[in-house]
Amino acid sequence: MTETMAAAVMTAAGEPLEIRDLPIPKPGPGEVLVRIEVCGLCHTDLHLWKGDQPIERDGPVILGHEGIGTVVELGPGVTRLKPGNRVGTGYVHATCGNCRECLTGHETHCASVECIGVNADGCFAQYAVFRESWATPIPARLEGAQAAPLLCAGVAAYSAIRKARLEPGELAVVFGVGGLGTYAIQIARNHGARVAAVDISDEKLEHARRMGADYTIRADRDVASDIHALGGANACFNFAPVAASWRQMILAAAPRARLVLISLPAESLRFEAAEIIERGLLVMGNADGTRQELRQIMELAAADHVRSVVTRIPLRDIDKAFRRLASGGVTGRLVVDIP
Amino acid sequence: MTETMAAAVMTAAGEPLEIRDLPIPKPGPGEVLVRIEVCGLCHTDLHLWKGDQPIERDGPVILGHEGIGTVVELGPGVTRLKPGNRVGTGYVHATCGNCRECLTGHETHCASVECIGVNADGCFAQYAVFRESWATPIPARLEGAQAAPLLCAGVAAYSAIRKARLEPGELAVVFGVGGLGTYAIQIARNHGARVAAVDISDEKLEHARRMGADYTIRADRDVASDIHALGGANACFNFAPVAASWRQMILAAAPRARLVLISLPAESLRFEAAEIIERGLLVMGNADGTRQELRQIMELAAADHVRSVVTRIPLRDIDKAFRRLASGGVTGRLVVDIP
Amino acid sequence: MTETMAAAVMTAAGEPLEIRDLPIPKPGPGEVLVRIEVCGLCHTDLHLWKGDQPIERDGPVILGHEGIGTVVELGPGVTRLKPGNRVGTGYVHATCGNCRECLTGHETHCASVECIGVNADGCFAQYAVFRESWATPIPARLEGAQAAPLLCAGVAAYSAIRKARLEPGELAVVFGVGGLGTYAIQIARNHGARVAAVDISDEKLEHARRMGADYTIRADRDVASDIHALGGANACFNFAPVAASWRQMILAAAPRARLVLISLPAESLRFEAAEIIERGLLVMGNADGTRQELRQIMELAAADHVRSVVTRIPLRDIDKAFRRLASGGVTGRLVVDIP
Amino acid sequence: MTETMAAAVMTAAGEPLEIRDLPIPKPGPGEVLVRIEVCGLCHTDLHLWKGDQPIERDGPVILGHEGIGTVVELGPGVTRLKPGNRVGTGYVHATCGNCRECLTGHETHCASVECIGVNADGCFAQYAVFRESWATPIPARLEGAQAAPLLCAGVAAYSAIRKARLEPGELAVVFGVGGLGTYAIQIARNHGARVAAVDISDEKLEHARRMGADYTIRADRDVASDIHALGGANACFNFAPVAASWRQMILAAAPRARLVLISLPAESLRFEAAEIIERGLLVMGNADGTRQELRQIMELAAADHVRSVVTRIPLRDIDKAFRRLASGGVTGRLVVDIP
Repeated sequence: MTETMAAAVMTAAGEPLEIRDLPIPKPGPGEVLVRIEVCGLCHTDLHLWKGDQPIERDGPVILGHEGIGTVVELGPGVTRLKPGNRVGTGYVHATCGNCRECLTGHETHCASVECIGVNADGCFAQYAVFRESWATPIPARLEGAQAAPLLCAGVAAYSAIRKARLEPGELAVVFGVGGLGTYAIQIARNHGARVAAVDISDEKLEHARRMGADYTIRADRDVASDIHALGGANACFNFAPVAASWRQMILAAAPRARLVLISLPAESLRFEAAEIIERGLLVMGNADGTRQELRQIMELAAADHVRSVVTRIPLRDIDKAFRRLASGGVTGRLVVDIP
Repeated sequence: MTETMAAAVMTAAGEPLEIRDLPIPKPGPGEVLVRIEVCGLCHTDLHLWKGDQPIERDGPVILGHEGIGTVVELGPGVTRLKPGNRVGTGYVHATCGNCRECLTGHETHCASVECIGVNADGCFAQYAVFRESWATPIPARLEGAQAAPLLCAGVAAYSAIRKARLEPGELAVVFGVGGLGTYAIQIARNHGARVAAVDISDEKLEHARRMGADYTIRADRDVASDIHALGGANACFNFAPVAASWRQMILAAAPRARLVLISLPAESLRFEAAEIIERGLLVMGNADGTRQELRQIMELAAADHVRSVVTRIPLRDIDKAFRRLASGGVTGRLVVDIP
Repeated sequence: MTETMAAAVMTAAGEPLEIRDLPIPKPGPGEVLVRIEVCGLCHTDLHLWKGDQPIERDGPVILGHEGIGTVVELGPGVTRLKPGNRVGTGYVHATCGNCRECLTGHETHCASVECIGVNADGCFAQYAVFRESWATPIPARLEGAQAAPLLCAGVAAYSAIRKARLEPGELAVVFGVGGLGTYAIQIARNHGARVAAVDISDEKLEHARRMGADYTIRADRDVASDIHALGGANACFNFAPVAASWRQMILAAAPRARLVLISLPAESLRFEAAEIIERGLLVMGNADGTRQELRQIMELAAADHVRSVVTRIPLRDIDKAFRRLASGGVTGRLVVDIP
Repeated sequence: MTETMAAAVMTAAGEPLEIRDLPIPKPGPGEVLVRIEVCGLCHTDLHLWKGDQPIERDGPVILGHEGIGTVVELGPGVTRLKPGNRVGTGYVHATCGNCRECLTGHETHCASVECIGVNADGCFAQYAVFRESWATPIPARLEGAQAAPLLCAGVAAYSAIRKARLEPGELAVVFGVGGLGTYAIQIARNHGARVAAVDISDEKLEHARRMGADYTIRADRDVASDIHALGGANACFNFAPVAASWRQMILAAAPRARLVLISLPAESLRFEAAEIIERGLLVMGNADGTRQELRQIMELAAADHVRSVVTRIPLRDIDKAFRRLASGGVTGRLVVDIP
């Protein structure tokens, strides 16, 4: 093994990402060293790069939390993984393991969540260190570029839809047809639901149709009326970071609808208590997915039930890719190929 | 049977209630005539009387939706009830019977809810007409004045707590120790939960202790800190019609807490999406209880697991009772004895 | 309206069914008269005809509980239905309406269930009487012969699968690919599950594949091993009336699998307590579907998500059809066209 | 620290237990050494001692899986526990940590369950080795002898009752008032349920009353009739290892009752499919409790909501205690004090 690796380095918030030669890290107890093949580029990377979300550790930082690769070295105490295993790790890559949330399969709500690319170096590099207990097996028949965005975007959409307990025939409304919305449309369809997609862009609505949406509605229409004409929403999923869609969700809801918040709008959200009470609405939030959900979505993708729409980028162009994502001109997800 | 009955009549919003002699009503198809023994006086009666909530029918109105009495006459098509049966009816006294909500035991979310005392004359009178399908059996061993407030206030609290699926040992926080809060404390205890009561009044907190609250917290303290010192709230129930308690609920919540809204504050409620998302909170509302829940709370009361704290008023003093309730000087619930 | 109607009459158990002219019945309170267009022929009809299941009322009997038609006359007190409405009624066509089961949307477990074709005349006739409260709307775009078998067979399979709360990616195993099994395969697929079908007949397994089964297993193989090779069963549905498939269900189960019994084998079923305890299995039963489930499956069928495989029979050939069903030589469901 | 410890040693199945001086074990990676204060004596110990359940490891064996003590030494990689922490460990003391069951909080259904006292030496000794990840904190205010039997018997009853999702007012029937049944009575009461206890012994029924049972029924009566007179069982819990109580559970069940199996009768259990199907019964099993459930029952006990009825035995009398337990003459649980 060579002693150094190529890595995309962020020296300070907003500065151009540089490809540098860095020492290959060593896996500690319970950790494995992974030779990365691809890593998805997520809006959270953009927020970290812009400094919207602070990174509280010194020195140059390697971002990237949708990384997939092959185990090449085991740290002390590793028992399950072997060199050659193909694994990925989600945004959350460690929790306390000992609280109520961790012990009951709700580990992403642990108070001690640690995120790869934030609390530790990430996967825009030839090598990265994963925790064995958080490394998700990646099926061999699943292409790396297909699997990578599932590790954060895909599983977040999947977890949101599972929480809503959709039944066949119910009407699911997806607000915002970006990367997560694209997954949500497919996964809601996979639950047998009818799916309506809402977006301001005709192009994205056309994309939504191709991904399986039964109905598409422009966000500047009277969305709630259109949805009530379809029977009312049994579940709404908000992937659009604007308060306007929250209002539409409330107005479009059928009795006992589940309103699931995923994206983070800049503004506060408001409602009247009576709006929730009279129809018995259920408001819930979702961020990230659990380790079990990661395995499940990988299986669904391996069986072709969930497809990622990706644009591939070589590592050397990563700085351009960040700027392109920042400009809003990306449909689907970007995935960085690691040489 | 005499041809007329004494009834408390509201001639117009805000006018003094008058005791008048009115014709005894006739039960229609599927209805029964009930000789009323007692009827609880609810804050909703007050809102109707003040005109906060419009009553869209002509002529003098008989309020009262916590009425209990004995069946004395059957309308056509009544098959189950017999003269002599003791029954009560909740605020909701009819729904469509045919929508998804009605067919699945969530009838209080039916779009065609009708309320006694609003859409039809109520129970501040010697006789009232109930729908057979909505008449709840009242156990003989349960005193009328104990049972009456359960028909609206009690069952609303009961239904709210059932929705939260409390487990023994969980911490339930009751905001507002009025009539409903008093029931909520008892019912949460009956689920094995630890109960914290929050109120601005020391006297009401003392009352909360007597009703079984394990902890009491003054609403002008840093409520969230106090609750986190007890482990964080697993469920919060808002019976205080002020937006301030909504903020406290969010701040006091443990991961995956259920925040249940019951009262209607004058202001909008606000939150940040991240507050719901990161801890996986569940916000839900509750109004009224179903027919099955009415039966259940009557059984719990008959077994002495839920007690009503009541002040009894003779029908002739009903106008004074409305004014007294409006002034805020009532602990527990008022019940009107019908002569 | 003519005063008489053609009807298939059973004079005594096992006797040939005769087509007779009978008086058209009159709808009573809460009932409607329906001009029947089609009625499915169910194994339960066969058991009633053979006398396996007694019919405790006098005189000639009209069987048939999967009937669809048009309302032509309203009994007293009918308010919702109008002449011209297209409706169907399931096997259960009345319950008490007042017990815990009825009030919570579990009406098929009411202790006073009444079945059409058993407790009252059924639908192998030009006219039949339905209860308004149990008449299910039939979408206009759904062909009668497609809809009829959903009223009993289809909704029984649907209800069984709903109870099992299948998640996308789980493995559902359908034992017995008859009429109900054919529905179960489609509905489990519609929930996103992987589906394995087990049957003794290669022809039925081939049919299962066509209906969407991902895997097929001959019942004389080591079924449990084959299923464990696919990851173990997360849910098993028993439509095969033999005790052997019960054993296979237990052996094939993954931890926390749901084992759902629908068919009635002649023998008792046996198990060791440890078999249920160690893997945390859940055994449940299902018969019939609720009114809400009937509406849901009609919607799924109208959207082409559930198809019935039917052979159509003219009413005059109904006796032959009974004998043919008794001989076991039917794939899918028989539907009788009413002239 | 001395180099040796006193331990009760089983040399071969059925041989008298001997108190011997053995080397103090060393904690391995992820393990801690615990100075034991008390250890409960469970029927499973009896089965292991008699050889009913084989122990597949060589050499003398130390039984005991309800042990409580203080951490005195940390193995490599231990991060959470510190010397001085008071902990207990349940019967299951290790699982794979990586399967679906482990990742979703159902770890006791992991296929690689390991049990202390079986797969490794147990707690009838002055020192024992616990896995850090399975060590349950024991509240200081809870006496060791009270806490010890909760680690296996108590949590098994607790987990069984949680699975049944009891609601206040429901009727829970406890079959068999031994150690587990005694816990079940208290925990079902703590959920607000009415509790009926069934046993063949008048003395045990008297004990059941003292522990909070609302009703007691002799097992040689027509139990099902008695229970139907109380409204029918909403949940049944079988702690009596005889097939007769299984029949009684089925017959006593109200619609949609949950029948929970815990004990292991020598015989197979039998039922007719129709018995499960018609009333929509749910049969489930339960063994052991999860780590989160262990914490919860310790909190309930610390708050005096669950009490253990124990007889204390000095370690030197352990052989006599085994024989006494084998003779059936024990009410409540035996706890061995470790010197």
